[in-house]
Amino acid sequence: MGSYDDLMAYQRQTEALAQIAGRLSWDRETVMPRGAAAQRSEEAGALHEVLHIRRTNPAIGDWLASASAQPLSQDGKAQLRHITRSYVRAQRVPGNLAAALARQTALSQFAWAEAREADDYAGFAPVLAEILALKREEGEALAAGGDVYDAMLDDYEPGAKAADLDSMFAALRPGLIALREAALGATPAPHVTGRFDSEAQMRLARQLVLVCGYDMTRGRLDKAVHPFSSGSGSDVRITTRTAEGDPFNCIYSTLHEAGHAVYEQSIDPAYALTPLGAGVSMGVHESQSRIVENQLGRSRAFTGWLYARMRDAFGDFGIDGEDAFYAAVNSLHRGFIRTEADEVQYNLHILMRYDLERALVAGDLAPADLEAAWNDRFEADFGYEVPVASLGCLQDVHWSAGLFGYFPTYTLGNVYAGCLDVTLREAIPDLDSHLAQGDMTPAMAWLREAVQRHGGLYPPRELITRACGFAPSEAPLMEYLEAKFGALYPAAHS
Amino acid sequence: MGSYDDLMAYQRQTEALAQIAGRLSWDRETVMPRGAAAQRSEEAGALHEVLHIRRTNPAIGDWLASASAQPLSQDGKAQLRHITRSYVRAQRVPGNLAAALARQTALSQFAWAEAREADDYAGFAPVLAEILALKREEGEALAAGGDVYDAMLDDYEPGAKAADLDSMFAALRPGLIALREAALGATPAPHVTGRFDSEAQMRLARQLVLVCGYDMTRGRLDKAVHPFSSGSGSDVRITTRTAEGDPFNCIYSTLHEAGHAVYEQSIDPAYALTPLGAGVSMGVHESQSRIVENQLGRSRAFTGWLYARMRDAFGDFGIDGEDAFYAAVNSLHRGFIRTEADEVQYNLHILMRYDLERALVAGDLAPADLEAAWNDRFEADFGYEVPVASLGCLQDVHWSAGLFGYFPTYTLGNVYAGCLDVTLREAIPDLDSHLAQGDMTPAMAWLREAVQRHGGLYPPRELITRACGFAPSEAPLMEYLEAKFGALYPAAHS
Repeated sequence: MGSYDDLMAYQRQTEALAQIAGRLSWDRETVMPRGAAAQRSEEAGALHEVLHIRRTNPAIGDWLASASAQPLSQDGKAQLRHITRSYVRAQRVPGNLAAALARQTALSQFAWAEAREADDYAGFAPVLAEILALKREEGEALAAGGDVYDAMLDDYEPGAKAADLDSMFAALRPGLIALREAALGATPAPHVTGRFDSEAQMRLARQLVLVCGYDMTRGRLDKAVHPFSSGSGSDVRITTRTAEGDPFNCIYSTLHEAGHAVYEQSIDPAYALTPLGAGVSMGVHESQSRIVENQLGRSRAFTGWLYARMRDAFGDFGIDGEDAFYAAVNSLHRGFIRTEADEVQYNLHILMRYDLERALVAGDLAPADLEAAWNDRFEADFGYEVPVASLGCLQDVHWSAGLFGYFPTYTLGNVYAGCLDVTLREAIPDLDSHLAQGDMTPAMAWLREAVQRHGGLYPPRELITRACGFAPSEAPLMEYLEAKFGALYPAAHS
Repeated sequence: MGSYDDLMAYQRQTEALAQIAGRLSWDRETVMPRGAAAQRSEEAGALHEVLHIRRTNPAIGDWLASASAQPLSQDGKAQLRHITRSYVRAQRVPGNLAAALARQTALSQFAWAEAREADDYAGFAPVLAEILALKREEGEALAAGGDVYDAMLDDYEPGAKAADLDSMFAALRPGLIALREAALGATPAPHVTGRFDSEAQMRLARQLVLVCGYDMTRGRLDKAVHPFSSGSGSDVRITTRTAEGDPFNCIYSTLHEAGHAVYEQSIDPAYALTPLGAGVSMGVHESQSRIVENQLGRSRAFTGWLYARMRDAFGDFGIDGEDAFYAAVNSLHRGFIRTEADEVQYNLHILMRYDLERALVAGDLAPADLEAAWNDRFEADFGYEVPVASLGCLQDVHWSAGLFGYFPTYTLGNVYAGCLDVTLREAIPDLDSHLAQGDMTPAMAWLREAVQRHGGLYPPRELITRACGFAPSEAPLMEYLEAKFGALYPAAHS
């Protein structure tokens, strides 16, 4: 067992160092003094260089060659599959290209922030062109003759193919637009009124993460500018935010991040600090956050319980009764920003970005023409015009950070959540009676057993197929959305 | 300039990684979830192994050989001096001895904590014997034929020699004992009464660190079990603690740590992430914390201002007037624990530990006989008997952690603080009028210019000599203590 054990010991140290890098990011977003930014970026850079050198170490290739000739358990084979995948990837990207990408994405994100501030897409277009050229070069190296976009996608969703996403997304789009059209013509949902004390919101948030089964002895909840979850194993931390006029921002950001965090906390502890010891893909990760946030957290049953908790915490806040509260939590509303979008229009945002980035990568859309293409598509799908670039194609950091192939995993996560939700409800017929008491325990136990504990053992699509007993498709998500929002906005269903 | 630049680029990355290790320790002591301890120790272990490999990399030897033949600036020469010193040190200690020490100190600290809990020195003695044997082996390797204890001392106080400390400490002891004897017979100083709200203590602590010139944009202040300061450059963090019955614990821990932290923050920014970019020795570091805590922070002038702030924060707390407050802050009191000792008896604690550890290292005292030796010496110097080992030779973690040669730097720091204080008061004749208004600015500006900004540029003793215009000796400290405590406890001065 020499080679396999040596490889795993080496890998374990790499994973430990990668956890440290994640902890540094958490620190930067939560507690770092603002004057420490420049020094921190140098510190993080040094650690990333250590990680890069470890991950491209030719010894890995030798270990892999001899370890794969050994008799191995199912776990062992899965470990080798992950290590091989990242090693091959690291080998294919020339060192100077990796360095150029690191430099350029740092610069591009700065240029993007400035352009967004100034609503100046034209000034940003050449920067995007540069990063796109480098990413394409990287994609071609990774694809090794195959499809370039698929190679990019594979970074975030191993094994996924754009052709599959194409048909999935094409099947979703008309139904989403129909729901959006019905809502735009309907009476607006009730709104909350008043100020919501930030400390009271955080107390509620702490209650909510416990409801999701989040283990506070192996994590913590803090406020930050951006909600996120970070870390694996026994140190998985959550951040959330509060807005004094909008308590739902905190509540649903918290539930979303708790979904991510509980996934990490629920992985078999035997996989800790190994390639199997983290969520298996962005899509599966998003399915765990979305099902907690939406299918469970925005359900009629759970919002009934939540309404009572909010009355406890905030008194009268302008919404009278559980039904009105449910409608408020699930309102479909006009808006330009993806991260603020509702369950329906969120996917329209993603479908649009997916089509645009595929065209950019294929060379069918020039970076200079992105703004016009964005604005046309937005009007077609959303029904109104984008006024300024900061509300349009400059709103997301992803492309400036070189994250081509990332966007579709958000909707793929929603699709997986739809599949898991229908299966979960069959497995637990009285789920709503638990949710109505603020009890997510049976749902979370099912998710842990069916999905989360496996970590990276199965490829993403296989994992969902095993959990559901059927191959994932967009149909359950669409049925769920049509049933829910068809009832809330009847015109859409007529 | 090839070799020097290459060496410095390499060193810069090492320093950046070392900063990360420090940040991880801060995280562990302040915000880490308690369930994360085991995983964290593996993460920190991986990073320390990376650091060890970098620091023993033979390429450093090659770079040093060619760089020292280049024409270099004063700064460049000092950088090479530091790098050579740590590289030679790392080279002299065989890898298996370094590994054995790392393993044994981890185990020993655990055994020490258990023994202290159980007041069982006899059970701990064999563990101490093992760690002592390993440390002696390391000391012999480091000494390369020279004095073993000097080699240990050099780790914490480069260039210091036990022979110099011997005469310094011998000169201090009788005066310290005389002061202690006078105080033991005197009327006890007034005591604070009541409960001191923890949040109000932290508000006062935040005010105090600003008084010391601590830059909050490049640091932060938190509560932790142990007060400490960590980090260099633009991320230097402080922790403090609060005890509801004793506000002085928080106040003087905060001033002490702020003294350490301001030192790090005041080092020339050009030295950041280089060997010159951190405090030059434990003794000099302690001098900066002690002068802020004691010579400035416990002065009659500053405590007058502090008394008013405490009345603002806590109302009546049982002490009537500035003079009584000054006496309370400077009370010499019975006690067994070093970290709770006053300005006078603290040094008696150190002198005792220094003599005992020298005897242990020389083989003149067997670990099995340490408890008896400790208790005899304690009674001789302090005037009463040690009742249990947790209040005696098991109170400090240092020896179990292998830190032989560390203790004397505490008193050396007090000696340096005494030298700096007398020079500072000559340079700023109206210092007390500033301190009486809670203004440490002139004192801190003088310290920054004379000591702090230089970082590691000059060897410790040379740095203090340059700052004071005379070679450091114990005389100024003794004069300061006799003047101050002779007035507070007149019998000692008669």
